[in-house]
Amino acid sequence: MTKTDVEHFRCRIEDGIATISLDRPDRKNPLTFESYAEMRDWFRDLHYSDDVNAVVIVPNGGNFSSGGDVHEIIGPLTRMDMKHLLQFTRMTGDLVKAMVNCGKPIIAAVDGVCAGAGAIIAMASDLRIATPEAKTAFLFTRVGLAGCDMGACAILPRIIGQGRAAELLYFGRSMSAQEGHDWGYFNHVVEAGALEETAQEMAERIAAGPNFGHMMTKTMLAQEWSMSIEQAIEAEAQAQAICMQTGDFERAYNAFVKKEKPIFEGN
Amino acid sequence: MTKTDVEHFRCRIEDGIATISLDRPDRKNPLTFESYAEMRDWFRDLHYSDDVNAVVIVPNGGNFSSGGDVHEIIGPLTRMDMKHLLQFTRMTGDLVKAMVNCGKPIIAAVDGVCAGAGAIIAMASDLRIATPEAKTAFLFTRVGLAGCDMGACAILPRIIGQGRAAELLYFGRSMSAQEGHDWGYFNHVVEAGALEETAQEMAERIAAGPNFGHMMTKTMLAQEWSMSIEQAIEAEAQAQAICMQTGDFERAYNAFVKKEKPIFEGN
Amino acid sequence: MTKTDVEHFRCRIEDGIATISLDRPDRKNPLTFESYAEMRDWFRDLHYSDDVNAVVIVPNGGNFSSGGDVHEIIGPLTRMDMKHLLQFTRMTGDLVKAMVNCGKPIIAAVDGVCAGAGAIIAMASDLRIATPEAKTAFLFTRVGLAGCDMGACAILPRIIGQGRAAELLYFGRSMSAQEGHDWGYFNHVVEAGALEETAQEMAERIAAGPNFGHMMTKTMLAQEWSMSIEQAIEAEAQAQAICMQTGDFERAYNAFVKKEKPIFEGN
Repeated sequence: MTKTDVEHFRCRIEDGIATISLDRPDRKNPLTFESYAEMRDWFRDLHYSDDVNAVVIVPNGGNFSSGGDVHEIIGPLTRMDMKHLLQFTRMTGDLVKAMVNCGKPIIAAVDGVCAGAGAIIAMASDLRIATPEAKTAFLFTRVGLAGCDMGACAILPRIIGQGRAAELLYFGRSMSAQEGHDWGYFNHVVEAGALEETAQEMAERIAAGPNFGHMMTKTMLAQEWSMSIEQAIEAEAQAQAICMQTGDFERAYNAFVKKEKPIFEGN
Repeated sequence: MTKTDVEHFRCRIEDGIATISLDRPDRKNPLTFESYAEMRDWFRDLHYSDDVNAVVIVPNGGNFSSGGDVHEIIGPLTRMDMKHLLQFTRMTGDLVKAMVNCGKPIIAAVDGVCAGAGAIIAMASDLRIATPEAKTAFLFTRVGLAGCDMGACAILPRIIGQGRAAELLYFGRSMSAQEGHDWGYFNHVVEAGALEETAQEMAERIAAGPNFGHMMTKTMLAQEWSMSIEQAIEAEAQAQAICMQTGDFERAYNAFVKKEKPIFEGN
Repeated sequence: MTKTDVEHFRCRIEDGIATISLDRPDRKNPLTFESYAEMRDWFRDLHYSDDVNAVVIVPNGGNFSSGGDVHEIIGPLTRMDMKHLLQFTRMTGDLVKAMVNCGKPIIAAVDGVCAGAGAIIAMASDLRIATPEAKTAFLFTRVGLAGCDMGACAILPRIIGQGRAAELLYFGRSMSAQEGHDWGYFNHVVEAGALEETAQEMAERIAAGPNFGHMMTKTMLAQEWSMSIEQAIEAEAQAQAICMQTGDFERAYNAFVKKEKPIFEGN
């Protein structure tokens, strides 16, 4: 069973959908060493889980996340030696790796501030929706660092294009919800009152299956990232042949023949 | 000479332009084992052909293609062993490889239903135009499978961006012609009455040459897919140096000097 | 000190910003063997420079560049043997490599004609702005060649998407400023009278630092081009850990604590 008694973020699981959020709304939900590590471990465990079929990451108190806490993370980092700095940057990168490898589609529902590592968490999700008030900032440059944080220089260009990504990463400026939608970063923009409901509906549609297939879609979207076209096609021939031996493929066929809606079981 | 006496799809060649379509309009042109295999072989032969300089794939009876036939393909697949499943997924993947490697630009002209493997055939083309009525659905998930079919997880994200591709592949929902145009999937949207004419005009402009150069453009768009920037630049230095020894390069220069329009010969 | 006494293009350096342009406005600024080579060498030297933090490439006389000079480059190329052709295509490719590897963000400010190698120079820049009159044409096909020139088949699809890039490369047609903006090629479109000022303001914001971080952002945007997601994340963990040992990271933190604006020093 997937853990819900987590300490450093909020988590509930209902009908195969895990809903998580950071939990320091008074400070716009900054990340701490502890919440990074606990989320990384939680997503790693999710890889082996069968009770969760989709994850929704939601805002808390009107904001998604302000990123790494200035006092609890940035201060200490300025005094760390290289060994410990690399330990930290690898831990944050491992959170993204764990999200990418967890096998369950992740929907980020963004409202208000979504900055730094918060923006990365949304970027590393599979789907993103936002309210008109969402302000997304890959602001690493504004704290004296580079835009290459937790995979941003690789992943962001593939979502919004190389030129737009370069602008956001060099300037650290906010991307508006409208820009995000126009550029393919946000799949949908909805009013704040409808944000969580929309995200839940999307998660329900995904969790209704075929979940083995969804796991394979997620796996291959990452797996084929840097393959040649020929390699990708062979990889998909193998992956899809595996899916053709699942019961869900037969269930869909049988339902079609009977003119019914298929009920998927995720195997 | 490129074969036009094909059995399982329609094909005519005129002025160096091959126009093909599936041919079961009453059922929205589903693919069968036979049409997959014959199209694969036809595109493979095209690689060696000198009488075709551009390919146009057109709808038939108002629809492009409904994808793999439910009764003739999906039914049998649900009863196949792994060896034969892999044989099938490799055959469908080989159709995409053959399209990518045929050396001639392909224009897909999409109207009505364009689903499953039909959507893949359009995706694997070089250019795409559509009518406002075109409905494109990568609907593999709706038949219990994964979105990774015939290269979709690799190719679709490069055309419309990773986030939009993820949505289409997880939900299997229809992409409208307007979305397709806004997202860079369709190069142009034209009224149904003008669809085939527009596609033919585009094909004529391409077929007017320089066709050796076009072959090299097509080759390198695929070849550089997963190269580093430095490797891609070296590969293009070699490819373009080859093109500089063609007669068409000299013909263009001579025509420019004489203030004439160049007449290319494809060598 | 970065060289400003160049012969075959214009160059001035002020407040850490190098502003360069081609200098044959009467002929819309074509490139010659000499200007290619000198720009390549200049960008190579820039890699080791500490007095330049951003580069702006501007039009001259209302045009950006018409590309390789027909009389001085294309004519001679039609009479060259393969050894010298490859020497030429590698030299032009080396200009792009030098731009990509120079370590300083480059802003192309495009007006009027921007064609052939001129379009490539804009494409190989990090950010691009344009006037409504900018006409960008990757017109290699119109001189009898292939679209694979100086990295275009690799880089252009990552900026505007594979389908739109294919159209521009096969047809050699002009992309309007509006299309360029809609497609993510141009970051901003501004009136001709505001073009250079806007580019300078962007360059000033970049040059205000953190310049070590900007160098690393630029490096990693290229470096991660064909890495897997996992490799990219590890590469960024290392790159960002390096940046965390710069003074600018500490400066930003100290300024934040004091509620001041950080003053970066580029180390």
